[in-house]
Amino acid sequence: MNRRKLLGGLAAVTASGIVPGVSRSSAAAGQDAGPAPTGMRAGSRNLITDVAGLKVGHASDPAVRTGVTIILPDAPAVAAVDVRGGGPASRETDVLLPENLVQEVDGIVLSGGSVYGLASADGVAAWMGARNRGFALREAPGIPPSPILPTACLYDLANGGDKAWGEEPPYRKLGVEAVEAAGPEFALGTAGAGYGANSGGLKGGLGSASAMSRDGMTVGALVAVNSLGSAVAPDSRQFWAAPWEWNDEFGGLGTDELAAGPENYGRAMRPRANTTLACIATDVALSRVELKRIAIMAQDGLGRALRPAHAPFDGDIVFALSTADQESAGDTLRAVLVTRLGAMAADVLARAIARAVYEATALAGSDVPAWRDL
Amino acid sequence: MNRRKLLGGLAAVTASGIVPGVSRSSAAAGQDAGPAPTGMRAGSRNLITDVAGLKVGHASDPAVRTGVTIILPDAPAVAAVDVRGGGPASRETDVLLPENLVQEVDGIVLSGGSVYGLASADGVAAWMGARNRGFALREAPGIPPSPILPTACLYDLANGGDKAWGEEPPYRKLGVEAVEAAGPEFALGTAGAGYGANSGGLKGGLGSASAMSRDGMTVGALVAVNSLGSAVAPDSRQFWAAPWEWNDEFGGLGTDELAAGPENYGRAMRPRANTTLACIATDVALSRVELKRIAIMAQDGLGRALRPAHAPFDGDIVFALSTADQESAGDTLRAVLVTRLGAMAADVLARAIARAVYEATALAGSDVPAWRDL
Repeated sequence: MNRRKLLGGLAAVTASGIVPGVSRSSAAAGQDAGPAPTGMRAGSRNLITDVAGLKVGHASDPAVRTGVTIILPDAPAVAAVDVRGGGPASRETDVLLPENLVQEVDGIVLSGGSVYGLASADGVAAWMGARNRGFALREAPGIPPSPILPTACLYDLANGGDKAWGEEPPYRKLGVEAVEAAGPEFALGTAGAGYGANSGGLKGGLGSASAMSRDGMTVGALVAVNSLGSAVAPDSRQFWAAPWEWNDEFGGLGTDELAAGPENYGRAMRPRANTTLACIATDVALSRVELKRIAIMAQDGLGRALRPAHAPFDGDIVFALSTADQESAGDTLRAVLVTRLGAMAADVLARAIARAVYEATALAGSDVPAWRDL
Repeated sequence: MNRRKLLGGLAAVTASGIVPGVSRSSAAAGQDAGPAPTGMRAGSRNLITDVAGLKVGHASDPAVRTGVTIILPDAPAVAAVDVRGGGPASRETDVLLPENLVQEVDGIVLSGGSVYGLASADGVAAWMGARNRGFALREAPGIPPSPILPTACLYDLANGGDKAWGEEPPYRKLGVEAVEAAGPEFALGTAGAGYGANSGGLKGGLGSASAMSRDGMTVGALVAVNSLGSAVAPDSRQFWAAPWEWNDEFGGLGTDELAAGPENYGRAMRPRANTTLACIATDVALSRVELKRIAIMAQDGLGRALRPAHAPFDGDIVFALSTADQESAGDTLRAVLVTRLGAMAADVLARAIARAVYEATALAGSDVPAWRDL
């Protein structure tokens, strides 16, 4: 890979890393905020795949109203996880604990289907093992490697789809379809793991966004939004994430209606069928412990874009991985580098969440409206 | 205590617990949003001490530019903690882990002084022990009880105060002064644990706020804001917490300027001297595990009111305690009750953070401006 030397130091934070914000007048007008400030921009796709060395694949089943999404690095990627919701469904998260052996993952799988969705990684693991991809303690003929595929699922069992799968849930098959579909471009909205998702009384979905700092670090986010909380203010179409919007990527409606009376959650707060699943990616070389801190900071993006968040009924999980296309600065400045990347990650994840709801289309026959139908 | 029966059920969330929000027009005008919506109001003081059975005491040392704050329940209170920042300074947080013996605390101590501030609880513990207050495994003459005083400190060592204390830091003495000063009223802004605090390039301070649901649950927050992140949007005096403001409690400036360009943190992001310390209180009877979830949800209030938050340089900690003045609903609805209280806690903490910065006054001789000087 092309490894460029990166300056991630304090100077970049306090001086050159800070660029002018959106002007007051354009923000107040709530539209035409213009391009991102000089020196900082979204990647060319405004997708997590703007991070070099990363592909994404979706599969969905319209009859079941569910789907699977895989984030697939070209090479094993250092990763971390932060589980913060009260109702998580996951596998292979323990492997990511700092004290454990394996440092890198072969993919991150997000799925609908609640516990049934955990089988999606079975399909991916078998597909990879057959291609000799995965972590190998011993490389020898006849010994398959162990693909490391941390996986998290959201609850879409009650969305009206046909769940009469008996003993044959579709998730293993969907996992294989997703990995075979992986590429640099992928759909947003009603797609992949977000296909059957709802969010705060509106149609949820799959979102993504990216940002590149002017010193060349790329941060991307992908998210499946099935939240208890709402992405928009009560009685408004404005997104909680509006302060961080770029280039009208979710409608450019501004911030002047961002207000919520106490215990007023708009259409949200219908518990028991929730979870927001996210993955942050960057091309900066980081340790798993550093990626854990970035995942923690990114959870604030989830909290800003959704109200409420991290409730007992949410299974909110944020993964973070590095494709390590870039080397990073030395030890003395690493905490500053992590601070910058974590703050970027929070902003990018908030934008990705709004894009998920903005891009979603209602399912035929469902009584849950899409944002665009409001 | 007066124990009232409380309905905390699902019906209260989906119907009666939801009240109308602030109207668009008043929110857009950014002022005169009027009283809180019908049926929901701040407590009479708009302080954490609106929670029945709770006092707060401050002590400060202007020459050293530091101080101590104690949250003092009238009777031992069930409590939990969520440590989320990357640079915490704390004691007696392990005692609050779910699997450990003691369920109740005698007080929560917040202090300046970084590691030296941990001595503040020594003073409080000795004061309480001499009065036979504290957890006693065996009650007998000559055996002092063990006061349970979880404590967290913020970094104000570099704020220009006189730290030439040699081997006699002032925190033990300040702890005693704080507990002796405890009462229902207390100062905001440059006071107590927030006396020497800075926040995102502005003077930080001590904040508090409260809310009461229309079914009679009270939630309060107290916070000492010494954050890496900024409480206001870049190039604006508007607070990130503005969407949740009540009754112009921090200026009523509205939300139309809430926008931030990428990597634009305004005056913030000067690392290495940070931490936001908070305590949530409620009069609803809860287990320690339930209070832990409420502390987790409250961290989103911290993330919403400050940008960025939870960085490696922050020692962000949220305590949560119950004075149990009210009984709560039965087991089947408890997760809904926790969701409501956690969402309220996030809003109240966001408001308390903005009030801390809004009320703060600059220290004489300091080059760090207060918000009111902007």
